[in-house]
Amino acid sequence: MGSDIHHTLLTDGRLDRLHTVARIDTTTTITTIDDADPATAARLARTEVLFTHWGAPALTEDALRRMPRLRAVVHAAGSVKHHVTDAVWKHGITVSSAAAANAVPVAEFTLAAILFAGKRVLDIAHAYARTRTRPGLLPYYTGHGNYRRTVGVVGASRVGRRVIELLRPFDLHVLLYDPYVDPAEARALGAEPAGLDELAARSDVVSIHAPQLPETRHMFDARRLALLKDGATLVNTARGSLVDTDALTAHLRTGRLNAVLDVTEPDLPPADSPLYTLPNVLLTPHIAGSLGTELGRMTDWAVDELARYARGLPFAHPVGPQELTRSA
Amino acid sequence: MGSDIHHTLLTDGRLDRLHTVARIDTTTTITTIDDADPATAARLARTEVLFTHWGAPALTEDALRRMPRLRAVVHAAGSVKHHVTDAVWKHGITVSSAAAANAVPVAEFTLAAILFAGKRVLDIAHAYARTRTRPGLLPYYTGHGNYRRTVGVVGASRVGRRVIELLRPFDLHVLLYDPYVDPAEARALGAEPAGLDELAARSDVVSIHAPQLPETRHMFDARRLALLKDGATLVNTARGSLVDTDALTAHLRTGRLNAVLDVTEPDLPPADSPLYTLPNVLLTPHIAGSLGTELGRMTDWAVDELARYARGLPFAHPVGPQELTRSA
Ligand SMILES: NC(=O)c1ccc[n+]([C@@H]2O[C@H](COP(=O)([O-])OP(=O)(O)OC[C@H]3O[C@@H](n4cnc5c(N)ncnc54)[C@H](O)[C@@H]3O)[C@@H](O)[C@H]2O)c1
Ligand SMILES: NC(=O)c1ccc[n+]([C@@H]2O[C@H](COP(=O)([O-])OP(=O)(O)OC[C@H]3O[C@@H](n4cnc5c(N)ncnc54)[C@H](O)[C@@H]3O)[C@@H](O)[C@H]2O)c1
Repeated sequence: MGSDIHHTLLTDGRLDRLHTVARIDTTTTITTIDDADPATAARLARTEVLFTHWGAPALTEDALRRMPRLRAVVHAAGSVKHHVTDAVWKHGITVSSAAAANAVPVAEFTLAAILFAGKRVLDIAHAYARTRTRPGLLPYYTGHGNYRRTVGVVGASRVGRRVIELLRPFDLHVLLYDPYVDPAEARALGAEPAGLDELAARSDVVSIHAPQLPETRHMFDARRLALLKDGATLVNTARGSLVDTDALTAHLRTGRLNAVLDVTEPDLPPADSPLYTLPNVLLTPHIAGSLGTELGRMTDWAVDELARYARGLPFAHPVGPQELTRSA
Repeated sequence: MGSDIHHTLLTDGRLDRLHTVARIDTTTTITTIDDADPATAARLARTEVLFTHWGAPALTEDALRRMPRLRAVVHAAGSVKHHVTDAVWKHGITVSSAAAANAVPVAEFTLAAILFAGKRVLDIAHAYARTRTRPGLLPYYTGHGNYRRTVGVVGASRVGRRVIELLRPFDLHVLLYDPYVDPAEARALGAEPAGLDELAARSDVVSIHAPQLPETRHMFDARRLALLKDGATLVNTARGSLVDTDALTAHLRTGRLNAVLDVTEPDLPPADSPLYTLPNVLLTPHIAGSLGTELGRMTDWAVDELARYARGLPFAHPVGPQELTRSA
């Protein structure tokens, strides 16, 4: 992992727990495998489990040759796609990821975004700051509100499932689109299964939780965005590539649609992008995932995984090569 | 009720239900009792139940003389303090209010506000719009996030109780201050009981849900606001009078505190108030309560109450004179 991460996350209480479950050197951070100094190379040669985080070096065939005793990788963050290569699977090394722990804050951010979108909280606040008079709420906002309205969830991913769960205490109807989930399972989750076009056309808020894959690129293109209802809100905490940004921006400029965008394409919109200033857009710099104390949740879950491994139990959050083709 | 309300809320489906439980004239709205025309006066003389909403005239001794058969008032909105006078209790008229239905959207707004405050979502968005560069999230936001942090709820009111309930699925610790709730009951609700100063000093987010009463005026005065932690957020969806606005504004200007204010004192801040523009303040014009479709929830609950009355059952949401002295 990166050494900044190490020093932020491996606080005293967590180090104490780590030492009870593993023989681990927590005084240095391994940030490179191929260029490791001799002392580190010797440690790597004895290593049975890698505890990884953001900034971990790629586990290539070459890297694995330097760790002949490696049997498992415990990743204390979300996606393992950056460092876990095919070589890892080929050598039968098991992998655990804290993507489920990272899904928690994304789902929580999304829930808050959905509740605020339903009441149009942020654009009412903008209008209030502009007019500095009390709006006549009754006629103006009829039709909004979080009672008997429809939320469309795209993707029963870890995040998507948690969003559906978190939406249970509310008087909102949930539609779910996911090509890998059959209708009975969707209903068991508490959602009405729907095709993607139908979901787009019926939802007051559409929230995207599918992974970035070749087949999800521009899932919300100009044609599909045009299906969204007037006044609907698109929430994207997944990846920018799932939405055609130019097509969306056209609807946002006219005020026909609203958006909450934690991710965009490109990651940093150009400095003159209207996304920064439009009153019907909440734009954030990829913060829905773990932030601050939430990083500690991922570390805690990963230490739990190490403890399971130490007791000879299987991982609670394993990742395998087959899932990776359709996951984040 | 006001006639605008009548026409917005009594939609066809609801009128159909009303007609199945009551003999009711839904073609006209009674907006005044004392100056009623002869036809209305004749209807009032026969009236057994009043179905009221915002804009209902006061039910004074004089008004009640014109409704000798009145036995119940079903209010399809929140507080009944505007129209239910002591005369109503004196005559043994029973009263139901939809304050519990109105508490639902306030609690939902509050939940979203708490989740966004925990991650500093709105000020990160402001900073992003200003700098148009990606912030270095790791060092900057350490200490924020919605994992193992503390929310202080002031008042186990209808809203406050629902907020505590809605906070259950999150990894947040809840403190509760309410002089009418004993420690065991607070714990049963899922909160740790705390004195108000202790709550102020320990919470990352403080959310006010106590009613406006002489004894709650400026509950958050300069002294108590100074107890809040640096970086804490004060959420007020209760009433503006519970907070000393000038004292709070001083902390908001320096950036020491953040706030989500749906209510202020005065109701409309002066046009030059910094509350409209400070990046660490979300100011809304009293919209946390029912808005749009949410007004329909209150109507639906009130029609349910009428249906209970028609079947000879007691109200599910009665209000009595004793509670009114410590409620909203
Ligand atoms: N904003 C952030 O900070 C942040 C943090 C974490 C994750 N994310 C993003 O959130 C999204 C969900 O992450 P996750 O870890 O829950 O994903 P995941 O790996 O759990 O998602 C896999 C699931 O997505 C569903 N899926 C696959 N292809 C689909 C398709 N074409 N249409 C609809 N559903 C499909 C399937 O159910 C699959 O099992 C991803 O895009 C991820 O990159 C963002
Ligand atoms: N922003 C909005 O749109 C909106 C809508 C509805 C209600 N409200 C406000 O929200 C608040 C809660 O409303 P409600 O209907 O849930 O209230 P409520 O009438 O249910 O509150 C009564 C309870 O408050 C508690 N309480 C009384 N005095 C207290 C004190 N000094 N300190 C702490 N707790 C005390 C007691 O438990 C009491 O039973 C009120 O201020 C109300 O005006 C705002």
